[in-house]
Amino acid sequence: MIDQLLKRLEERKEEMIEIRRYLHQHPEISFKEEKTAQYIADFYEGKDVQIARNVGNGYGIVVTITGDKPGKTIALRADFDALPITEETDVPFKSLNEGVMHACGHDGHTAYLMILADCFIELKSSISGTIKIIHQHAEETPPGGAKSIVDSGILDDVEHIFGIHLFPTEPTGTVGYRSGYTMAGRTYFKLAIQGVGGHGSSPHMANDAIVAGAHFVTAVQTIISRRLNPFDMGVVTIGSFDGKGSFNVIKDRIELEGDVRYMTDDTQQLIEKEIHRIIKGLEVEFGVECELTYEADYPPLYNDPDITDFVKSSMENMNDPDIQRVIEFPKFSGSEDFAYYTQKIPGSFFFIGCKPKDVEQAYFNHHPKFDIDEDALLVAAKSVGQVVFNYFETYILRKHAHQQAFVKLSNDEIKF
Amino acid sequence: MIDQLLKRLEERKEEMIEIRRYLHQHPEISFKEEKTAQYIADFYEGKDVQIARNVGNGYGIVVTITGDKPGKTIALRADFDALPITEETDVPFKSLNEGVMHACGHDGHTAYLMILADCFIELKSSISGTIKIIHQHAEETPPGGAKSIVDSGILDDVEHIFGIHLFPTEPTGTVGYRSGYTMAGRTYFKLAIQGVGGHGSSPHMANDAIVAGAHFVTAVQTIISRRLNPFDMGVVTIGSFDGKGSFNVIKDRIELEGDVRYMTDDTQQLIEKEIHRIIKGLEVEFGVECELTYEADYPPLYNDPDITDFVKSSMENMNDPDIQRVIEFPKFSGSEDFAYYTQKIPGSFFFIGCKPKDVEQAYFNHHPKFDIDEDALLVAAKSVGQVVFNYFETYILRKHAHQQAFVKLSNDEIKF
Amino acid sequence: MIDQLLKRLEERKEEMIEIRRYLHQHPEISFKEEKTAQYIADFYEGKDVQIARNVGNGYGIVVTITGDKPGKTIALRADFDALPITEETDVPFKSLNEGVMHACGHDGHTAYLMILADCFIELKSSISGTIKIIHQHAEETPPGGAKSIVDSGILDDVEHIFGIHLFPTEPTGTVGYRSGYTMAGRTYFKLAIQGVGGHGSSPHMANDAIVAGAHFVTAVQTIISRRLNPFDMGVVTIGSFDGKGSFNVIKDRIELEGDVRYMTDDTQQLIEKEIHRIIKGLEVEFGVECELTYEADYPPLYNDPDITDFVKSSMENMNDPDIQRVIEFPKFSGSEDFAYYTQKIPGSFFFIGCKPKDVEQAYFNHHPKFDIDEDALLVAAKSVGQVVFNYFETYILRKHAHQQAFVKLSNDEIKF
Amino acid sequence: MIDQLLKRLEERKEEMIEIRRYLHQHPEISFKEEKTAQYIADFYEGKDVQIARNVGNGYGIVVTITGDKPGKTIALRADFDALPITEETDVPFKSLNEGVMHACGHDGHTAYLMILADCFIELKSSISGTIKIIHQHAEETPPGGAKSIVDSGILDDVEHIFGIHLFPTEPTGTVGYRSGYTMAGRTYFKLAIQGVGGHGSSPHMANDAIVAGAHFVTAVQTIISRRLNPFDMGVVTIGSFDGKGSFNVIKDRIELEGDVRYMTDDTQQLIEKEIHRIIKGLEVEFGVECELTYEADYPPLYNDPDITDFVKSSMENMNDPDIQRVIEFPKFSGSEDFAYYTQKIPGSFFFIGCKPKDVEQAYFNHHPKFDIDEDALLVAAKSVGQVVFNYFETYILRKHAHQQAFVKLSNDEIKF
Repeated sequence: MIDQLLKRLEERKEEMIEIRRYLHQHPEISFKEEKTAQYIADFYEGKDVQIARNVGNGYGIVVTITGDKPGKTIALRADFDALPITEETDVPFKSLNEGVMHACGHDGHTAYLMILADCFIELKSSISGTIKIIHQHAEETPPGGAKSIVDSGILDDVEHIFGIHLFPTEPTGTVGYRSGYTMAGRTYFKLAIQGVGGHGSSPHMANDAIVAGAHFVTAVQTIISRRLNPFDMGVVTIGSFDGKGSFNVIKDRIELEGDVRYMTDDTQQLIEKEIHRIIKGLEVEFGVECELTYEADYPPLYNDPDITDFVKSSMENMNDPDIQRVIEFPKFSGSEDFAYYTQKIPGSFFFIGCKPKDVEQAYFNHHPKFDIDEDALLVAAKSVGQVVFNYFETYILRKHAHQQAFVKLSNDEIKF
Repeated sequence: MIDQLLKRLEERKEEMIEIRRYLHQHPEISFKEEKTAQYIADFYEGKDVQIARNVGNGYGIVVTITGDKPGKTIALRADFDALPITEETDVPFKSLNEGVMHACGHDGHTAYLMILADCFIELKSSISGTIKIIHQHAEETPPGGAKSIVDSGILDDVEHIFGIHLFPTEPTGTVGYRSGYTMAGRTYFKLAIQGVGGHGSSPHMANDAIVAGAHFVTAVQTIISRRLNPFDMGVVTIGSFDGKGSFNVIKDRIELEGDVRYMTDDTQQLIEKEIHRIIKGLEVEFGVECELTYEADYPPLYNDPDITDFVKSSMENMNDPDIQRVIEFPKFSGSEDFAYYTQKIPGSFFFIGCKPKDVEQAYFNHHPKFDIDEDALLVAAKSVGQVVFNYFETYILRKHAHQQAFVKLSNDEIKF
Repeated sequence: MIDQLLKRLEERKEEMIEIRRYLHQHPEISFKEEKTAQYIADFYEGKDVQIARNVGNGYGIVVTITGDKPGKTIALRADFDALPITEETDVPFKSLNEGVMHACGHDGHTAYLMILADCFIELKSSISGTIKIIHQHAEETPPGGAKSIVDSGILDDVEHIFGIHLFPTEPTGTVGYRSGYTMAGRTYFKLAIQGVGGHGSSPHMANDAIVAGAHFVTAVQTIISRRLNPFDMGVVTIGSFDGKGSFNVIKDRIELEGDVRYMTDDTQQLIEKEIHRIIKGLEVEFGVECELTYEADYPPLYNDPDITDFVKSSMENMNDPDIQRVIEFPKFSGSEDFAYYTQKIPGSFFFIGCKPKDVEQAYFNHHPKFDIDEDALLVAAKSVGQVVFNYFETYILRKHAHQQAFVKLSNDEIKF
Repeated sequence: MIDQLLKRLEERKEEMIEIRRYLHQHPEISFKEEKTAQYIADFYEGKDVQIARNVGNGYGIVVTITGDKPGKTIALRADFDALPITEETDVPFKSLNEGVMHACGHDGHTAYLMILADCFIELKSSISGTIKIIHQHAEETPPGGAKSIVDSGILDDVEHIFGIHLFPTEPTGTVGYRSGYTMAGRTYFKLAIQGVGGHGSSPHMANDAIVAGAHFVTAVQTIISRRLNPFDMGVVTIGSFDGKGSFNVIKDRIELEGDVRYMTDDTQQLIEKEIHRIIKGLEVEFGVECELTYEADYPPLYNDPDITDFVKSSMENMNDPDIQRVIEFPKFSGSEDFAYYTQKIPGSFFFIGCKPKDVEQAYFNHHPKFDIDEDALLVAAKSVGQVVFNYFETYILRKHAHQQAFVKLSNDEIKF
């Protein structure tokens, strides 16, 4: 089946590119992707699949492809929302929606997965298991779509999940993997500090919220410098200190907003606890009242080591001219709501190089000039296709051998 | 002459009140008092005086009344600007200019002085000297009008100056004086801190201006706590910390605005030097670039001790039923651009109680419900009238006695 | 009587000097003044007085002189302890007690008062009232002797109290007075901060007491800069930060010691409350445990305005060639346990210039080279003698005039 | 040869233990190991080797064993200094030197290496290359012995170096390896801050060094929290804040001592630069003078990846019952002056489990009750013996195959 699949994908490469260009021209921001979702659902309409629409807290779509033979259920996910960025590229299929742009490659994610899914539908008779195709809305904007899709229960019977992200720093042909914690979790917080206003000349009649806020900013540094294990990654950024007022009036209330990053759930809990503690101390120390909104947006993205090993060896053994380089990716501090899926079930999120040809240094995701090499779509489709094929194959082999299959994936090693 | 003067003032009390009400209904903010100035100038038009208009950096008016007998030249000052405050009183002559209000009593200052000046004009033949009536614009808003009037040279021949302020905490009939430094000087400053912006997750790629700003706020406290003589008065308030931004973007630039208060020029210099020092250190310590705008708006108001003693004893010996109580006022932290006059020539600025009758606690100056007891206008007129009379009398007496007159007012004692 | 008194004091001037020199040679530190007390008590032994020894928490002596005529009871106080300082002067009567020195003039205080008291004893028949002579131990070392003498009840029938201090910045012949709060109150505090020790490389396993201590030092500055009325005097000094340890071991416990100064009881209460508040906040913010010892040593010294006015006018009207100059003293930040007396009963503590002749700048109190012009002893004796005389005179006059005497000294004015 | 070697080691196991016990009973602290060095040198005396004594800045010994066949030169290192710790174990061979103890296992390091070296001497005829045995003094105390041995030039012809450390957290039979940066580098610094002393009541006459020091402690936190890449390890601990003084005297001078840790040279340079920057800023901001002593004691220990891979696979393929478990060690924050060797030449430092039998949790290195399972000495000897054998074997094999040997060790892969 695998040869057939890879061949079909090659034949439909142009189709992927067309879909991607159509989506690129019609970007919609998170939670507003009504037409995009319609477009995707229409694609599956009339095919031998089940289509669930409006899954979760937005326009999420889950397409279920049931293979003719019994087997495990896995999920593949692609996100489809765009960003509130004004495109500055010169591509002929530039965004038609002023101020909105597919600047993170989600158009490409969606395009490759639609074609790959369609190929799976064609090959249904050879598939021993079930594939759930998740077209996810709202990855860019907390609370994101992923958590709500997990909460919907539609994945309760899924054993493993896979997803990819296009990455413009690496050339087309590169597949990047990483085991364990891979992308940072992120928390948004807002702290309002209420003091007592007054005249600038009479501090003793007032209670200066700016002075309290400055002490908070200073004290919060010690969480990273003294509370965190020096081998762990953690960041607390106060991105906003809103204390604008009149120079000669003591400020009664200020609002701070912050961004917290971490690579493990433990670090997230540590920082959350410490920020609460500092604020509680601040209230006493400066006699102010604090209101804290603390929202852990996205957890750290954890790639299951066994599943990631499986992806890695699947790629390394592919012998396909389109897959030229399989490398380990470093951890990085960006965040992804794919993390919610792998909190629920084991999975792996990997990276597909898409650096435009003839470019020294590519514009990074979220840049108004972000662009991709569209050849990368085929790489994505083939990689994920191969992973799915191997997954089911392995399962069957194991079954025949009366082996325990993926039951104990936390074992040190899985030999396929 | 003095009996005549006091009697005339009593007769014209209602006129003062009418003028005050007219001005109250037609307030104009600092530097925009075109119609107010016209109204005042019209009042003097055709009288036996010299009128200088548009004196200084605005609509300042100086009216010169030359007595028929030779003598010294003194000045009397009243300010006439209003505030950008929406009036909330129920008086029938409430402001007709939306959002503008005479909430500091300058309407009363102007009204009493116009009538007092007119009485002096009537009594010209008895006056041994020259009186310059300063109707000053723009007291409320730095750089104020006073400094520019001083700079105009129009006071170069003036030996002493007097001014009053209506004060609603004391009942009508009270005159308050204070020797030496009486009202605080004030400095406005703005500090822009330029760091390097960046993504909230990557502080090492940026240079966080908010963290540097917080350290500035903390360090600046030590000027008051450790650099200032504990017996001296000084305040540094950071009234504005403008660091609003996105929670997950490291802020590249913030702007702080501050208010500095002090009762002596030495303290002003000390604080200025120390703020500059801290900023210079901050630049090195945090690798940021700072721009500082530092503007000593108004100096501390210094009442000449001899002249103030003279005012005090003039009041204490008045025996007028309208002047019931002569008290020493405490220092206070408000600021007044009258301070510029007494930087140039000796003078005294004193206080006239104007607490509305039947009120437990009066609304203070600058409150939207600020109100005065209009009987205080007569008190103001009589007090200042008496001071002027005594001034010229004393001068004549001294002259006759072949005494040194006010030549050396900085002497330890003046005996009248 | 007054002429007689002043004449007797002049005659006994050399005796004062001899006593002072004897005491100077035999100094004893606070709470250890056994022999000094014996010497003083011996002086009074056999005279027509009552002698109370070991009054209060040390060697305090109270000598009661009862005039033959009825009248009020007043007290005069002189302190007699020395300092743990090694004398560096060249006087022939240099300290014989190694490391101990009368470097604050208490030898002079005691000497003048012994002779003055003796003159009062001689003149008993003319005195209409009672004089309690307080020879006080332990002024220099908290908790001091004054409080315990007050607590002994021996002053319960005393109406007013007077005391002086020799001051080497002013020439002999100068008497300095000040109304209201005159010398600072002082508090000693000790703060132990208990964190958790650990290895320098693993801050997350420990809880760094030095970091918490540094935040305390920084936060405490805001008491003076933001909590205190800028017109009030207050100081918080952390004089000791005992955090010595090994460079690579995280400090588990540090001890800070501090000194607080203030000119009013209100300020003392404000600062005490705020320090407690900051420490309570610190415990939460940094998760440390704090122990605070907070001891308000000496209150601010408050000179009753009426009594001080009385002293001032007594001095100004003296017409004695030895009293050449009566000046108002500024507030200063030194502390005196005389403050405990004037907390209990109205009184006045004033200053006697004693600058050594032919000296440009005198060594200040507590300097190893501190010295006095011994002529100042007569000035002290005459000044206090005159005050006592006027006190009883006035009382008699008033009594005769059926006036209320000092009963309501808090009235606005007392006319003698 | 390898079988012969391993067999000889087994036969001489008791001898290793005896040597270790002798050394344990006679510990000497860093730079004072005169008798220890004599003992070691005596062991080699008269054998067919070259012995260099007093190498470097202390009692270092380098023994050169020249194989009969030509080949590469490698080095093996064991340290032999003890610690100023009073032993609290119950072993019969407890330290005889009061207050000094082999609490870090260096006695074991020395013992195994002496016997292993002696076996190599016996097998000289089979060895194709040269082995330099480094018995190093003074590992525990900066500046340590390693740097001076490197600087002596005695290793200039050495191609690779190996060393081990006994580790009581893992059971005997465990060998731990780690590639790349493995142990932290460490810097000691001392900062003296000179202000101006003064009386606690008059901060404006002084310049408070404690306040400046507290700001330093607070500011220095931002190096870790904002300057360091959040994925990198770094620690700045202020272990000592020596500001003890009198509570009412403003401190003129304080001394801080600190400990800096890092896993890369880049981080060391970053922190050093930032600490200098903050101090320079502090001098300006607070008007103090700072003296900084900054000594990068030990660099981070970097294990060459290729050489470490070689060690790992040598161990994994050993099939010796004494080597039961080969695991990857995590990075840790301890420091080792072996780091100086691998700064100079590629090498690998690995870990030998030595947890005492029948113990739940072993006392860690530097604890007064630290103890080892002496069976681990044989494990150490066998492991290092095998590594050396494989090293020379590989070299020979490669040579025969006309391969490039270790010339380009920075290549991605070395296949032995």
